[in-house]
Amino acid sequence: MSVKMKAALFLLQLSGFFGSGSAGKVLVWPMEYSHWLNLRTILDELVKKDHEVTVLIPSASLSYEVGDTSAIEFEKYPASLSMAELEELYKDSLNKYIYELPKQSFWGYFLLYQELAWEDSKYCESLCKDAVFNKELMAKLQNSSFDVIVADPFVPCGDLLAEILKIPLVYSLRFFPGSTHEKYSGGLPLPPSYVPVAQSELSDRMTFMERVQNLIFMLSFDFWFQIFNEKNWNQLYSEVLGRPTTLSEMMGKADIWLIRTYWDLEFPHPVLPNFEYVGGLHCRPAKPLPKEIEDFVQSSGEHGVVVFSLGSMVGAVTEERANVIAAGLAQIPQKVLWRFEGKKPDTLGSNTRLYKWIPQNDLLGHPKTKAFITHGGTNGIYEAIYHGIPVVGIPLFGDQFDNVVHMKTKGAGVRVDFLTMSSTDLLHAVKTVINDPSYKENAMRLSRIHHDQPVKPLDRAVFWIEFVMRHKGAKHLRVAAHDLTWYQYHSLDVLGFLLACVLTVMFVITKCCLLCCQRFTKSGKKKKRE
Amino acid sequence: MSVKMKAALFLLQLSGFFGSGSAGKVLVWPMEYSHWLNLRTILDELVKKDHEVTVLIPSASLSYEVGDTSAIEFEKYPASLSMAELEELYKDSLNKYIYELPKQSFWGYFLLYQELAWEDSKYCESLCKDAVFNKELMAKLQNSSFDVIVADPFVPCGDLLAEILKIPLVYSLRFFPGSTHEKYSGGLPLPPSYVPVAQSELSDRMTFMERVQNLIFMLSFDFWFQIFNEKNWNQLYSEVLGRPTTLSEMMGKADIWLIRTYWDLEFPHPVLPNFEYVGGLHCRPAKPLPKEIEDFVQSSGEHGVVVFSLGSMVGAVTEERANVIAAGLAQIPQKVLWRFEGKKPDTLGSNTRLYKWIPQNDLLGHPKTKAFITHGGTNGIYEAIYHGIPVVGIPLFGDQFDNVVHMKTKGAGVRVDFLTMSSTDLLHAVKTVINDPSYKENAMRLSRIHHDQPVKPLDRAVFWIEFVMRHKGAKHLRVAAHDLTWYQYHSLDVLGFLLACVLTVMFVITKCCLLCCQRFTKSGKKKKRE
Repeated sequence: MSVKMKAALFLLQLSGFFGSGSAGKVLVWPMEYSHWLNLRTILDELVKKDHEVTVLIPSASLSYEVGDTSAIEFEKYPASLSMAELEELYKDSLNKYIYELPKQSFWGYFLLYQELAWEDSKYCESLCKDAVFNKELMAKLQNSSFDVIVADPFVPCGDLLAEILKIPLVYSLRFFPGSTHEKYSGGLPLPPSYVPVAQSELSDRMTFMERVQNLIFMLSFDFWFQIFNEKNWNQLYSEVLGRPTTLSEMMGKADIWLIRTYWDLEFPHPVLPNFEYVGGLHCRPAKPLPKEIEDFVQSSGEHGVVVFSLGSMVGAVTEERANVIAAGLAQIPQKVLWRFEGKKPDTLGSNTRLYKWIPQNDLLGHPKTKAFITHGGTNGIYEAIYHGIPVVGIPLFGDQFDNVVHMKTKGAGVRVDFLTMSSTDLLHAVKTVINDPSYKENAMRLSRIHHDQPVKPLDRAVFWIEFVMRHKGAKHLRVAAHDLTWYQYHSLDVLGFLLACVLTVMFVITKCCLLCCQRFTKSGKKKKRE
Repeated sequence: MSVKMKAALFLLQLSGFFGSGSAGKVLVWPMEYSHWLNLRTILDELVKKDHEVTVLIPSASLSYEVGDTSAIEFEKYPASLSMAELEELYKDSLNKYIYELPKQSFWGYFLLYQELAWEDSKYCESLCKDAVFNKELMAKLQNSSFDVIVADPFVPCGDLLAEILKIPLVYSLRFFPGSTHEKYSGGLPLPPSYVPVAQSELSDRMTFMERVQNLIFMLSFDFWFQIFNEKNWNQLYSEVLGRPTTLSEMMGKADIWLIRTYWDLEFPHPVLPNFEYVGGLHCRPAKPLPKEIEDFVQSSGEHGVVVFSLGSMVGAVTEERANVIAAGLAQIPQKVLWRFEGKKPDTLGSNTRLYKWIPQNDLLGHPKTKAFITHGGTNGIYEAIYHGIPVVGIPLFGDQFDNVVHMKTKGAGVRVDFLTMSSTDLLHAVKTVINDPSYKENAMRLSRIHHDQPVKPLDRAVFWIEFVMRHKGAKHLRVAAHDLTWYQYHSLDVLGFLLACVLTVMFVITKCCLLCCQRFTKSGKKKKRE
């Protein structure tokens, strides 16, 4: 065989392994609403690349399959909750998050937050039980020989399924309260001195008292996670696997963590080699608008338009809040497109039009768009960053507060408080981000950072899912921290041992000195006697 | 203006900024030998992309300009050291590293290591002084309006030049003893429980006693870095800038750290967003060999060949060591190509040919190559990984010990000791990596990991240098840890404050309880009296 042929054979040996070309089988454990919308973009791309994608969904769900015509397959399993119960659960939870939680005192906030998180966790647990105890479903999944499971760890169970099916695991995560998942299950070191805990609403440059606050937040979330939240899951996981295990142990087996932010929005902090920051992967260049909307936008003249949405979960608000908002918006020279599903507010200005649905990304990419009034959901914030639009943030729940704080800190947004803002507050906020050029400049700076990456976020997400399928995991990126106990991880046993050594040496030296002194004194006394 | 035109304008606004197309001006502060060989690959690529590259070199140097015909410009400044002095310095230092250091006891090792590092540091300091105190040179550099400086932080000063010239800074680094540069100047958190300190020769899975050893190494290196090494540099930097500053502060301003390893060789550990792992960027597919070498390789038949080199710095070894090595190699059925510059060993077998120079990468990529006997330099190790060749490591100094330990831990190599090995030891090692198929399999596994990245290491390195030129830095990737003192970073002030609060509350409660008890007792006594 000639050298060239052998060299070619070697290259084939290498490349043949990677680009086997054969499509993979992807199982998906998703989460509702904006989480699903984001994950969907990755799944569509996987389908385009000829992979078979099967999404596990409960019989009662609110966001999956809506208008779905793609090649994604949905494997439906019977859920304990009926559709009516599910709708009631979401409605009640949302109302408490938006209208009750912000009114609480410091401790009241923690208590109510814990109650809400407890309810969320119970719902997630019911979903997990419905799946893993469904023998027929599990047998079907076992027989399907999936190559990878892509899961949203906000609803645990994807990790358990990966363990049962013995397949690699890729996570898609925005954040977990207090960053506890990332810390305890990923081994990610996040020093509280400059890494604000998720949901702390702090920036990376903290005053002394803010650092105190951040540490207290961290300790509270850690306590809450380890004592309350994890306990039930540990029990369920151990029961299913028939051996003692924990949620953290199972989550720690994830091969890749796809995090739905990037350093445009996120404050820089330590990361692990198997964490990929793929924020904004769903954003695309703007497409032309429907005629009616385009005409309305064009009618704004040189003033341009303001886009307003409170996200996929919040169509309507109370009548009082709607009137305050509408009255504020009525006073700006811009035209306003407001995604709103409730009763038309009495104070609605002639410059404002209500829509049950808006092509948000296309509107934000329209040259006439001057500002985006948003609840601060990650998807919307990333569309604003992608198109370089300054924001007025009205955060309602979850990561929205942090997202708005990040945009504000980076000079690309202002924040108003949903429950307490007056029409003037909103008016002032919108005028500020439109009339003060620094907000547009900063939004454009974030946009430039976002667009200037070696590989686009979506391509990176798909690459690592395919990598995990090709190599049956990504063990080479997994830190050895996972094999250590908490006291070993912090070197407490080593420090204790070294301290014991030092103390022993000091004790021996002191004893020796004392003995010498005693002998010296005795011999001195003897001599004196002599 | 139509919507389409405005949209196009927006895209131009974005893209115009990135791809201004205009070439940049790159200043380079390099380091000799293998460091230079690696950096050279990046510079060649920058030149290909029409950037102007100027390398600052002293009048006495050993590796720059050698056979250089590229468009790279060399800006030479008069050095305090003559060529003869420099050669003597390197020869003496190398002899001590190779023949004296390994013979030392635990403490003797640290003392001699410190002496050698001190000498290295003095030499680097002289280079820095020769440059920054050369008024003519500095004026020329000031007038040249460079866009970025690419520096090897192993020789500090690049950071100082960046500060003086007010331009962004990109580092190219393999490691610094004890990982101290990365920790103190990059803000990188490296838990000693699972991250072996650079030059500790440990793996990421340590026994209890190894963790004790790693912590002691870490503390020793930290102490040495902060007390001895940094002091002189702090003084020089403060003198040059005319204000108190430190080496760490200046190094901490680096925008991007290009680290010359990747997770194929490196044990996974936390990283920072501005650290890019670009190991193996110099590797390329093998080119055809010169005829004489190809004929010799082909003459090996089915046994194949073994490639042997101790790196660009070590051409010859002592006669005794050369004979031991030659006698070992004479016993293997493979043909051996040995890069060797000394006197021909008496025990040289007919299967072994000596070469003053070998096309190492092309030989390692040759289908007949079965093993690579190497000192374990990062460049050579990466060529072995790139082509999937198992190694026999004979580490001599620097990071070579760690590199060989990594290859051994990953099952792609064995290690022999240069000073104490017998012919049989070497023979056994070579036979092991060739005859035990697991070594080839593991080397191929590392090769697959190396080749399967979203972007090639060289392209990533060039991308981030260009990014820094486009954006005049990469501030969005810089952790806020740089603005904290060491006790703030570790939250010691916050913990102290919280402890004080808890103690105060406990004191007040105890006092109150005591007062209550006293009153209760008094009133009890009163009642009794009544």
